[in-house]
Amino acid sequence: MAIIRRGCDELLVEEEFAQKLARNKPLRVKAGFDPTAPDLHLGHTVLLNKLRQLQDLGHHALFLIGDFTGMIGDPTGKNTTRPPLSKEQVAENAKSYSDQVFKILRPERTEVVFNSSWMGKLDSADMIRLASTSTVARMLERDDFGKRYKNNQPIAIHEFLYPLVQGYDSVALKADLEIGGTDQKFNLLMGRELQKHFGQPPQCILTMPLLEGLDGVNKMSKSLGNYVGITDAPDQIFGKLMSVSDELMWRYLDLLSFESSATIAAWRKEVEEGRNPRDIKVMFAQEIVTRFHDGRAAEAALEDFEARFRQGAIPNDIEEFRIEVMEDDAPLIQVLKQSGLTSSTSEAIRMIGQGGVKIDGEKVSDKALKLEKGETVVLQIGKRKFAKVTIA
Amino acid sequence: MAIIRRGCDELLVEEEFAQKLARNKPLRVKAGFDPTAPDLHLGHTVLLNKLRQLQDLGHHALFLIGDFTGMIGDPTGKNTTRPPLSKEQVAENAKSYSDQVFKILRPERTEVVFNSSWMGKLDSADMIRLASTSTVARMLERDDFGKRYKNNQPIAIHEFLYPLVQGYDSVALKADLEIGGTDQKFNLLMGRELQKHFGQPPQCILTMPLLEGLDGVNKMSKSLGNYVGITDAPDQIFGKLMSVSDELMWRYLDLLSFESSATIAAWRKEVEEGRNPRDIKVMFAQEIVTRFHDGRAAEAALEDFEARFRQGAIPNDIEEFRIEVMEDDAPLIQVLKQSGLTSSTSEAIRMIGQGGVKIDGEKVSDKALKLEKGETVVLQIGKRKFAKVTIA
Repeated sequence: MAIIRRGCDELLVEEEFAQKLARNKPLRVKAGFDPTAPDLHLGHTVLLNKLRQLQDLGHHALFLIGDFTGMIGDPTGKNTTRPPLSKEQVAENAKSYSDQVFKILRPERTEVVFNSSWMGKLDSADMIRLASTSTVARMLERDDFGKRYKNNQPIAIHEFLYPLVQGYDSVALKADLEIGGTDQKFNLLMGRELQKHFGQPPQCILTMPLLEGLDGVNKMSKSLGNYVGITDAPDQIFGKLMSVSDELMWRYLDLLSFESSATIAAWRKEVEEGRNPRDIKVMFAQEIVTRFHDGRAAEAALEDFEARFRQGAIPNDIEEFRIEVMEDDAPLIQVLKQSGLTSSTSEAIRMIGQGGVKIDGEKVSDKALKLEKGETVVLQIGKRKFAKVTIA
Repeated sequence: MAIIRRGCDELLVEEEFAQKLARNKPLRVKAGFDPTAPDLHLGHTVLLNKLRQLQDLGHHALFLIGDFTGMIGDPTGKNTTRPPLSKEQVAENAKSYSDQVFKILRPERTEVVFNSSWMGKLDSADMIRLASTSTVARMLERDDFGKRYKNNQPIAIHEFLYPLVQGYDSVALKADLEIGGTDQKFNLLMGRELQKHFGQPPQCILTMPLLEGLDGVNKMSKSLGNYVGITDAPDQIFGKLMSVSDELMWRYLDLLSFESSATIAAWRKEVEEGRNPRDIKVMFAQEIVTRFHDGRAAEAALEDFEARFRQGAIPNDIEEFRIEVMEDDAPLIQVLKQSGLTSSTSEAIRMIGQGGVKIDGEKVSDKALKLEKGETVVLQIGKRKFAKVTIA
């Protein structure tokens, strides 16, 4: 139970869940995923990790791809980012999901299922019967619906049908437990209601928090740029994870690491007693790189990182530029712009002012500095941008 | 246009309607009917008469039996008076409709259609797309939905789908005009919206008022007992229509008679100038009996009625009772009860008090009156209950 509860936001209904476990049969654990092109980041893996933990405890994961509604798209036509998917696209996306999620899930205890396989068989009368199982008032209890209704923003009627479809998926799958983000709680509860309606024991629900992005503030998302993609290169993953705050590190460990809670608690104690949290961060970053690449990539990423940041050394593979000048020298700010290290001379001036520019590892403070013809220097902007420049 | 507008509540949109007429092609006129066992009364015929008038003008009636939703019944199971209908029951009810409505409609310009024939072909995805064409706020504009929502009375979500189904029927039928009761206006307008959505010219709508019952106050309905059934016996129809107020008579003429508006206006003038409105009522009652039975039945009903009410005579076919007594006489109130003319002695006492009891045509005022052994009398309660009683 401690493993199941780790990191989770809510487990409903605990008593029922204990009874289900007591039956000593693998639970059918449902988790639903969007059928659009998957490009997973660590935020998505919070759920997948929980599924994996449940698999390690012997349970059966139902990886549900919600292709039925995906193939309908947004029927109002207002949401152009949600065009209907073809059967081929769904199959392609499912393949891409498999490639990514089996880095976490155990294939032998995972069943990939598509809700079109049962929803497609329902006719219009079945859909009306499904609609009859809930009420308008109940739907308007859902936060976003309630707000939109109050603010006179239109809610198309089919939007009330989608939670019912999601709930009916639990009926079709005979789910014992459904896991989802905290923002999905309403829909997960709908599964309970529909299972009761169809004479099944209602599933329990387990909600997982939404993972904060690298900034530690907003939810991790591609559009905010504060994410770690699970297909990112090893040194990118490593570098991004080393950049998070010490506080966020503990949160990430809790939700993303497969280390036991006991180990993490021990580390926390060591840090309180003086150990450098960077040590923990390194172990964590290596665990994640190993998960999505391999141990060798993790080692290499660590070595590269240490070379670059801890020992202040210059990486081996930096770009080289040759800047031709008419005069005997060139203003540094021009060189920074021409080599692409800054996007403009004004950015170059600002970066120098902030102490973010180094020449051969030495911080520059003089904004008017000039480089002489014939010189070759290593320029560095911020932590990770390097270029070797020759003034010719 | 005067014929079309006669008695109607609203015609929307008049300009569009004029354009449709100007095409000089028969209009497709839709009217929807409940698929449950039909037992039509004059209230239902208001719509049918309008359809008939439109047929007389050359238009095509689409008599729609809403069996699709009827076969679903009330899926919440709360409304036990709406169990799902089987295909056989629907066919039987349709037969019963035909038997009744073709006393009014012209069969050669009537198409009986069932919405299951197109709704049954839609799948769950089609139903979701249909649901996407309207919004929650739009549905809550419907009077009854809005009130129920405000009063915290549950509205099941499928109830929002039914107006859309009704609207989609107009699409499937390519209706030019839909007629319905004033209480159906919202649903009729839904047909317009859906036709526009599906790229069709929107139907016009024509609403007819709900017919008042014999009491002139409430809407005619079986449960209120204030109705004239179209399968009622000739003398029942005749008697009931003769009992309406003079004011209600004009209303009935307007909505139920096939006499022209000019004729009715002329009659109205004659009555204003002193003619007995009873003459008009007799003509109207005969028209209606003729419509649902035949001319001979109408004549017979009139003769019987005149015999009974105008000349105060006793009808020929009254029931005879023999009441055996131990004493030499019997209290009238006991006799009234035992012969079934009143349901209790207290009703008998009340009726005598109101002057509603006659013996051999003479009003009785003495509540303690006794009838002697050996006597045979004709007892009358109210206007129409008679019995011949022998005290033995």
